[in-house]
Amino acid sequence: MSTISFARGVPAPECLPVEALADCAKAALERDGHAILSYGPSPGYGPLRARLAEQHGVDPSRIFLTNGSLQGFVFLAQRLVPGRRVLVERPSYDRPLKILRGLGADVVGLDCDDEGLDPDALERALAGGEPPAFLYLIPTFQNPSGRTLPLERRRRVVELAERYDLLVLEDDPYGLVRYGGEPLPSLFELSGGQTAYSSSYSKTISPGLRVGWFVFPEELARQIEATATATYITPVLLGQATVNEFLDRGLFEPNLERVRSLLGARRDAMLAALGRDLPELTVNRPDGGYFLWGELDGVDSGELLGRAEEAGVTFVQGTDFGAPPETLRLAFSFVSLDEIGEGVARLAAALPAAAR
Amino acid sequence: MSTISFARGVPAPECLPVEALADCAKAALERDGHAILSYGPSPGYGPLRARLAEQHGVDPSRIFLTNGSLQGFVFLAQRLVPGRRVLVERPSYDRPLKILRGLGADVVGLDCDDEGLDPDALERALAGGEPPAFLYLIPTFQNPSGRTLPLERRRRVVELAERYDLLVLEDDPYGLVRYGGEPLPSLFELSGGQTAYSSSYSKTISPGLRVGWFVFPEELARQIEATATATYITPVLLGQATVNEFLDRGLFEPNLERVRSLLGARRDAMLAALGRDLPELTVNRPDGGYFLWGELDGVDSGELLGRAEEAGVTFVQGTDFGAPPETLRLAFSFVSLDEIGEGVARLAAALPAAAR
Repeated sequence: MSTISFARGVPAPECLPVEALADCAKAALERDGHAILSYGPSPGYGPLRARLAEQHGVDPSRIFLTNGSLQGFVFLAQRLVPGRRVLVERPSYDRPLKILRGLGADVVGLDCDDEGLDPDALERALAGGEPPAFLYLIPTFQNPSGRTLPLERRRRVVELAERYDLLVLEDDPYGLVRYGGEPLPSLFELSGGQTAYSSSYSKTISPGLRVGWFVFPEELARQIEATATATYITPVLLGQATVNEFLDRGLFEPNLERVRSLLGARRDAMLAALGRDLPELTVNRPDGGYFLWGELDGVDSGELLGRAEEAGVTFVQGTDFGAPPETLRLAFSFVSLDEIGEGVARLAAALPAAAR
Repeated sequence: MSTISFARGVPAPECLPVEALADCAKAALERDGHAILSYGPSPGYGPLRARLAEQHGVDPSRIFLTNGSLQGFVFLAQRLVPGRRVLVERPSYDRPLKILRGLGADVVGLDCDDEGLDPDALERALAGGEPPAFLYLIPTFQNPSGRTLPLERRRRVVELAERYDLLVLEDDPYGLVRYGGEPLPSLFELSGGQTAYSSSYSKTISPGLRVGWFVFPEELARQIEATATATYITPVLLGQATVNEFLDRGLFEPNLERVRSLLGARRDAMLAALGRDLPELTVNRPDGGYFLWGELDGVDSGELLGRAEEAGVTFVQGTDFGAPPETLRLAFSFVSLDEIGEGVARLAAALPAAAR
């Protein structure tokens, strides 16, 4: 019996447009091989920067491409964080939390509810204490909670950022992976481009290409560029050029539709299976992204995880993200529809009798 | 008049096997696309790790691939350096020096002569003061000096490392780019695999692919792997898989022969032009690599650089590498044969009359 992973926040293999990317890599090298195969600008491949600059309505000098967006987060944190407060959602994505702690940040988790970050909690944190280095948040289909910040809260976050001269880093890897509902404007858009923004092609094309990007304020872009040059001289241009070719050929939108369809079916299947087999789990219904957020009244998800792994299914405990022990994250992105049914059945069987 | 660069330590455009790499990228993705396009192991692409492990005679767990070897140096330095002494050659490659200083290292430059690092200087440094975090050196065709450490000195460095329990990082990007003479065993080989070793495919295939590798001692490999995971999850697998395909096809050796021929001709042309037009410059004759090291008796190379740039030619002053003001580095790798002749003529014209 192989373990079924509701832990891996990774696209299912059939999401990856392998053949198309093979053609794109070859075509990109044939067209622009000398630039791609030489050292180049540390903020990344020029044509892709130009395209993203146009998309975001900013000067290309504000676009910074990295070997995956986490690498850019590290650069930003190395520049701004040491010895300072950083505000995050509680719960939040565990990797940035680890990076911040490793750099000696005072990481302050702000209260969230079903609609994401509570702006009052943000205001209290800003009104008291030293000005934080920045606020890190994932306002759309958040990792781990799947939650999306409503428009009114977005406006308040942007207003507070302006009033307190707060740098906001809006991480938006999942925004386009939407299965229903209507898109909301980003904090970046609501702020007139004043906040920092990051995203990547990991969820829309391929994570292995490691193409993330940031839109930074001008001065910060220059600083991050210096850090990147000192760290790796040039990012890997081949992945960026392959993505650019994929976009040039008009393959992005059809691929995104395909990914939405593949993953939306998984979300629906997991919600159906949970409703049928595990009604004890209170779970949300995000309009997109990779994750459901669950709560089991009176059950420690760490204890459940131990039993679940014995039963052949894994997930991530909420405590890994700074959330209470009763919470857990279920990723539906990686598993097949069959695995979803079987995995939920195993999970239900692993739930302690006492809790049923 | 466009500026001729004797500053850029970069392969000439015709060194890059563009068409072959375009085919290799496509073939790699067609063969193993799902692995390449997904998140993978943080120490890099499995088949290339296995190949390098065999080449070096070590377990694959000791091979660590990064997005260019400088990135791996950063990981190593982040782990070992803060607050400690680090021994380096004087002169040495400027980027590592900058990284070390940025991390608060006490960077100790050891005396070198025409044969590279003076082992007596190393012994004195080891005998006095706190044990250093490591010794960083480029024993073959060094950047910036082009010097190669002779066999007897290599043996002494290895003996000293063993006696003082010193971690040695041997950086060897240029070793295979040889135009004459006989290869020497690496420190890594002489130590029976006890030292750390780094190299890359930047000088033998393409720098833009950003494929560097390290051979670390076991325990250090595990630590660096954790740092890499926390920084970028997975390196860019496409570049590594493209390199692996290039090697699989037997293209490495013929390409290396081609590169040697292209760059060896440049070295010879630059030496000839310097002998003819700039006899005041005392210059060495390395058997490989990218660089000549020059000394101008009584001339500050910084002043010369100002005049040279006005005359349309650039180089790097020795002071950038921790060397005396009379020294300078001339890179012959990037420029064409015509540019070499013209650039040396411009340099000669820029030399102050007083020094002639």
